[in-house]
Amino acid sequence: MEAKNPLIVVLGAGFGGLTFCQTFNHRTARVMLFDRQNHHLFQPLLYQVATAGLSAPEIAQPIRSILSNQPNVTVLLDQVTGFNLAEKMVRLEGSTLKYDYLVLALGGCTSYFGHPEWEHFAPGLKSLDDAMGIRSRILLAFEKAENASHPAEHDRWMTIVVVGGGPTGVELAGAFAELTRTVLQRDFKRIDPSHARVMMIEVGPRVLAQYSPKLSASAEQQLKALGVEVRTATKVKSISQGRVDLENGETIFAENIIWAAGVSASSLTPKLGVELDRVGRVKVNPDLSVPGYPEVFAIGDMALVLGADGKPVPGVSPAAMQMAKHVARLIERELVPGKKPSRPPFQYRDKGSMATIGRSAAVAKMGRLEFSGFPAWLAWLGVHLIFLIGFRNKLAVLLQWAYAYFTYKRGARIITGLSDEPKR
Amino acid sequence: MEAKNPLIVVLGAGFGGLTFCQTFNHRTARVMLFDRQNHHLFQPLLYQVATAGLSAPEIAQPIRSILSNQPNVTVLLDQVTGFNLAEKMVRLEGSTLKYDYLVLALGGCTSYFGHPEWEHFAPGLKSLDDAMGIRSRILLAFEKAENASHPAEHDRWMTIVVVGGGPTGVELAGAFAELTRTVLQRDFKRIDPSHARVMMIEVGPRVLAQYSPKLSASAEQQLKALGVEVRTATKVKSISQGRVDLENGETIFAENIIWAAGVSASSLTPKLGVELDRVGRVKVNPDLSVPGYPEVFAIGDMALVLGADGKPVPGVSPAAMQMAKHVARLIERELVPGKKPSRPPFQYRDKGSMATIGRSAAVAKMGRLEFSGFPAWLAWLGVHLIFLIGFRNKLAVLLQWAYAYFTYKRGARIITGLSDEPKR
Repeated sequence: MEAKNPLIVVLGAGFGGLTFCQTFNHRTARVMLFDRQNHHLFQPLLYQVATAGLSAPEIAQPIRSILSNQPNVTVLLDQVTGFNLAEKMVRLEGSTLKYDYLVLALGGCTSYFGHPEWEHFAPGLKSLDDAMGIRSRILLAFEKAENASHPAEHDRWMTIVVVGGGPTGVELAGAFAELTRTVLQRDFKRIDPSHARVMMIEVGPRVLAQYSPKLSASAEQQLKALGVEVRTATKVKSISQGRVDLENGETIFAENIIWAAGVSASSLTPKLGVELDRVGRVKVNPDLSVPGYPEVFAIGDMALVLGADGKPVPGVSPAAMQMAKHVARLIERELVPGKKPSRPPFQYRDKGSMATIGRSAAVAKMGRLEFSGFPAWLAWLGVHLIFLIGFRNKLAVLLQWAYAYFTYKRGARIITGLSDEPKR
Repeated sequence: MEAKNPLIVVLGAGFGGLTFCQTFNHRTARVMLFDRQNHHLFQPLLYQVATAGLSAPEIAQPIRSILSNQPNVTVLLDQVTGFNLAEKMVRLEGSTLKYDYLVLALGGCTSYFGHPEWEHFAPGLKSLDDAMGIRSRILLAFEKAENASHPAEHDRWMTIVVVGGGPTGVELAGAFAELTRTVLQRDFKRIDPSHARVMMIEVGPRVLAQYSPKLSASAEQQLKALGVEVRTATKVKSISQGRVDLENGETIFAENIIWAAGVSASSLTPKLGVELDRVGRVKVNPDLSVPGYPEVFAIGDMALVLGADGKPVPGVSPAAMQMAKHVARLIERELVPGKKPSRPPFQYRDKGSMATIGRSAAVAKMGRLEFSGFPAWLAWLGVHLIFLIGFRNKLAVLLQWAYAYFTYKRGARIITGLSDEPKR
């Protein structure tokens, strides 16, 4: 074994962990990348799998395949079970490792704000399995509506409630409205899917709160044009099977409830034994190292990093990728023999952000420039295709989108996971 | 309600049921099509989903979407629970219906020849869920091999046993050999997937027994060229977790066992109360009606029909489609007011058959013409693209194949269904 070569352990193959492995460049250091899944997921398009626009393999690539040209990187499928930062050890189901550097890039998970019991009735959207589950549930609901004999039952099956008015909630609500109003409409004989009710519930005063009030208003107007009922300043009191109770006393009966309201850091962060913020993120030093452990870094959605303006760097993929590159450069420099160089602080460069709402509908900001509607949608399309990993996927996704745009059809309207006939 | 219009109930939306609905042409008759899935599955390419070549939505189309232009056809997702043929009634989970004509097109299921306990260790390949399950299991096995520390463990994870040397077994074994020898080979750092052992076990004296001995020999030779160990005249004694015991006393340790040995008719056929053959098929009259019930027809894999040569018509999709058209014409004629016409017997026209083995490897016969290797593979490619339903799917599949052919990569190497991080 090459025991004297430094070992860098990277946990998580999201945008942060993957970018670190792709850009870290050192002749002798070994990198071991662990993830619980075999694929890197292009999270920004996950909502398209949930809404039957794309198929799962189109937005996922095997991690090994992406990194097959990095000779010093070993990819292993395993699950983290614990840490001993003082001993520089990480425990996994398959092994225990002693590292020289540890890069934590574990991402986030859906948070129900202290109501884990809501998850069963209102699934969140974080993994491919989540997305395929939501797709099957929604499509199945319209099948049940077609079979139902009582009008009240129709309405229940044909009501979709999206909780949360952030980018994911807006994308989902817009895509569900389009799915019901255009794609499914031709397919059913008894029900009229265009009468489906798509509702978005946001506790704050406006949707897409991280954008300017002007863009929020534009997004709300674009959602309404697609047929989405937008309820801002509305708080959910409780969620149970087929019903959402609001703080204002109203009850909404809906067999399709999707939770897009809360994200917290990976549930592994409490095991680190370091200071966390309210949603479980590690409060890192300006150089992204974990306080007290200079050889441990936290990047991406699990790190709380303050920007130049004193506000937290947002949990978006460009930020995770910038942090990964910062840490890669920093470790490369420290591995040069001789005096340890000083560590520069991480600086986030906001290149702009955008949220899509539907066909020709989106909002975007780039520096002081803000735009919405068709130009924003075109920009969104281009940026997402450029960043979607793997040539094949880009081409397949582009074709699917072109097909959907011109024909108003969607290719992935497949329900899986229904029980099969018993074998004999 | 249009109660006086005759009602034709069709059960099953495979090749038989779907073709009936597409070709049945009558101004006033109503057709109700029931299936437990929302999609029609292009079964001949299912093995490509199991071997990570294609994604699930590429070989499946929503039934409603295929039939959206047939105004008299209603598509419902439901499960058959029983029959009362004497009363012309069919019971479903959602309703009970009284039909004028009943078309049974329920297809087949995997048969373990009286050993249902083997299913857990050696899954079969009949549905999209089966295929995605097999894909995840095999890809996961190679991840486990990469993690394993002991050589004997490596071998166990990297051994794939396909039981059955019919068309499905041959396709699977060939595709697994290609997957391990070309696609996966570049991705792993510790193991060498090209050393994976792919074994095919066939109880009969030769593979593809329905072809000529010459084509069987060619298929066996093409399989061996891909690296498949072919064991003919070999009987499985028992299957348990990670091991196959053969009648000859040999034991094979393998964490990947796929069952492609037996097919029987749908498990619903015993509920009909009519005469069945050994594998549960309905012994139909020459006009495809069920003996004693002239208004009930059975078509496709669930019907035992004798051809002009006295041998059973094979359980292949062209046969099911021809039967569907025969029954459609027959019912159309009987619905014309006046004297009932006599019923012609069904005649199967064998247009040839083909089985693919791998890249540029296949066997085909058309009448007395037999060929193998690259020309047979090209013919297979063309025929399957022509019959694959839906323009979008054809294009997507063609692109995937072209990509895989020229790059030796496969797009759908995604493991789903692994446990996710707990939500909070």
